[in-house]
Amino acid sequence: MSDKDDGAGEFELIETWFAPLSTSYDGAFGLTDDAAVLDVADARNIVVTTDMLVSGVHFLDDTPAAYIAAKALRSNLSDLAAMAAEPFAYTLSLALPQHPGDDWLDGFSQALGVEQQMFSIALIGGDTVSTSGPLSMCITAFGRVEPGRELRRSGAKPGDLVFVSGDIGASAMGLRVLRGEVEGLSEAEAEILVQRHYRPQPRIDLARGLGGLAHSAIDISDGLVQDLGHICRHSGLGARIEIKRIPITDTVMKASGGNMVDVLGGGEDYELLFTAPAANRIVVEEAANKANVDVTVIGEMHESEGIKLIDADGDEISADGISGFRHF
Amino acid sequence: MSDKDDGAGEFELIETWFAPLSTSYDGAFGLTDDAAVLDVADARNIVVTTDMLVSGVHFLDDTPAAYIAAKALRSNLSDLAAMAAEPFAYTLSLALPQHPGDDWLDGFSQALGVEQQMFSIALIGGDTVSTSGPLSMCITAFGRVEPGRELRRSGAKPGDLVFVSGDIGASAMGLRVLRGEVEGLSEAEAEILVQRHYRPQPRIDLARGLGGLAHSAIDISDGLVQDLGHICRHSGLGARIEIKRIPITDTVMKASGGNMVDVLGGGEDYELLFTAPAANRIVVEEAANKANVDVTVIGEMHESEGIKLIDADGDEISADGISGFRHF
Repeated sequence: MSDKDDGAGEFELIETWFAPLSTSYDGAFGLTDDAAVLDVADARNIVVTTDMLVSGVHFLDDTPAAYIAAKALRSNLSDLAAMAAEPFAYTLSLALPQHPGDDWLDGFSQALGVEQQMFSIALIGGDTVSTSGPLSMCITAFGRVEPGRELRRSGAKPGDLVFVSGDIGASAMGLRVLRGEVEGLSEAEAEILVQRHYRPQPRIDLARGLGGLAHSAIDISDGLVQDLGHICRHSGLGARIEIKRIPITDTVMKASGGNMVDVLGGGEDYELLFTAPAANRIVVEEAANKANVDVTVIGEMHESEGIKLIDADGDEISADGISGFRHF
Repeated sequence: MSDKDDGAGEFELIETWFAPLSTSYDGAFGLTDDAAVLDVADARNIVVTTDMLVSGVHFLDDTPAAYIAAKALRSNLSDLAAMAAEPFAYTLSLALPQHPGDDWLDGFSQALGVEQQMFSIALIGGDTVSTSGPLSMCITAFGRVEPGRELRRSGAKPGDLVFVSGDIGASAMGLRVLRGEVEGLSEAEAEILVQRHYRPQPRIDLARGLGGLAHSAIDISDGLVQDLGHICRHSGLGARIEIKRIPITDTVMKASGGNMVDVLGGGEDYELLFTAPAANRIVVEEAANKANVDVTVIGEMHESEGIKLIDADGDEISADGISGFRHF
């Protein structure tokens, strides 16, 4: 479909706020052409991931533009990390309910610029359209990986240890804070959780260091238990996890009131969940050290299917109800 | 943000309707992993384009699923064609107001399958989310091009002939038919225009044959005059176009009532607009012949800026009002 429409134009919007974000990548052509060109001169394969984000579904409607930018980019970079890829570029398509105003665009594009510098990536293309619905965006992110070095969800072996990076549940509790559902935290504690929600740390360096050491990996977006389920299913295995070994901060415990269903099923941790043979444990820990991130063994992979969750008393508890986010 | 939701799941939806569309591309991993891997073994660069499409903006709300699929894919392939790239893959993200039902998903995915076979492409990734707004989708399409062979918008030279493939205005008139705004056409004529609206022909073979022959190229999405304006601006030149030389079918003339503003500004022709030196005219026509598409010379490039439109009497008419679609 096509039609006429007046007002400040799409081209001006791209030229003012987005084209400056593309200058560090030659093949983006300053966002002035029909497509971008990714050179393959270094013979590394190109890894592609894409996410659609909708206001009111993926972020609260009143989320500041800078936080939307940070989280949207980082969640995509986390997918690249989970494949052991090194990010280098992304495209951004925006569907806007109306011209969002210069302040919004300033905040959004400045935050993208900061993220780009932090992760050494450039904007290489996109689209800007109008919508009668909520603000929506689609990011497609690109990384590079040496052929055969990518980490997959499949590939776990019986006896593999299950590792998780960082700690779990802070993002889910941060969302609760934003919704006004948490009491009893200090302002500083609440802010830490909110920042963990908006600014997850894609574990790029860690994942790049795991090539040849880990058998399988996934980033935790849907929730630890559900995402471990993906590794299990695609590897044709089961897993046994001890809840007490899962790294959870005191602040998260306090915010959750000890409700493990919310902590383990909340999702959006964007931590790396991976499996590696027990013999590699020390070298894995050294790789984590080098990447400045903690990793914790929380259980191991088994031949028998399904995930067994073991509580502090050594009893098996049901994983039902710890499912993760579902759109439909 | 993240939350719980019941009902038929995103994973089942992907597994049933979309994973089968990925089987021909190994690096898609059956849509079961965090990202796809594009191998670069043939040393051709990878060309990337992306589009966001919103129901009610880019297609009428009652458009059949199969037509949405065809048009969304083809408009992206047309962008790849405009860079002289050979398409091979795409990602598809869907934001759905509710579970669209099996019939809709059947029609949509079957049509994607037909298009994939026609254009030798595979689905390699995507996302499926819920939205409170209209159905929206984001397609990112991938092609390959020999390093240095890509066609750009810039690069036109003074004296270049301006060529256009196929004919102009059928898509815009097809949209008018769909809106019930056209009278006096036979049912067959109306259907031809509607099909031209829904199933544009990305000029892949033609563009691939123009490497080394054409100086610049763009696909006509916003409208012939506006898109020619992009070539002019990025090449630092102007153009002189004779309206009577622009290929327009009798059916389009009849549907438009002779209103050139609507024909030339309607957009979504997805024809290739390109410039080439006059000395290359015969080889360009031979390349077009080989690609089974007509090309027509409609004017030439000039040093002086701006686009001069010449009417049948040899008088210059204003290009104002022939602008093209604007979202904001």
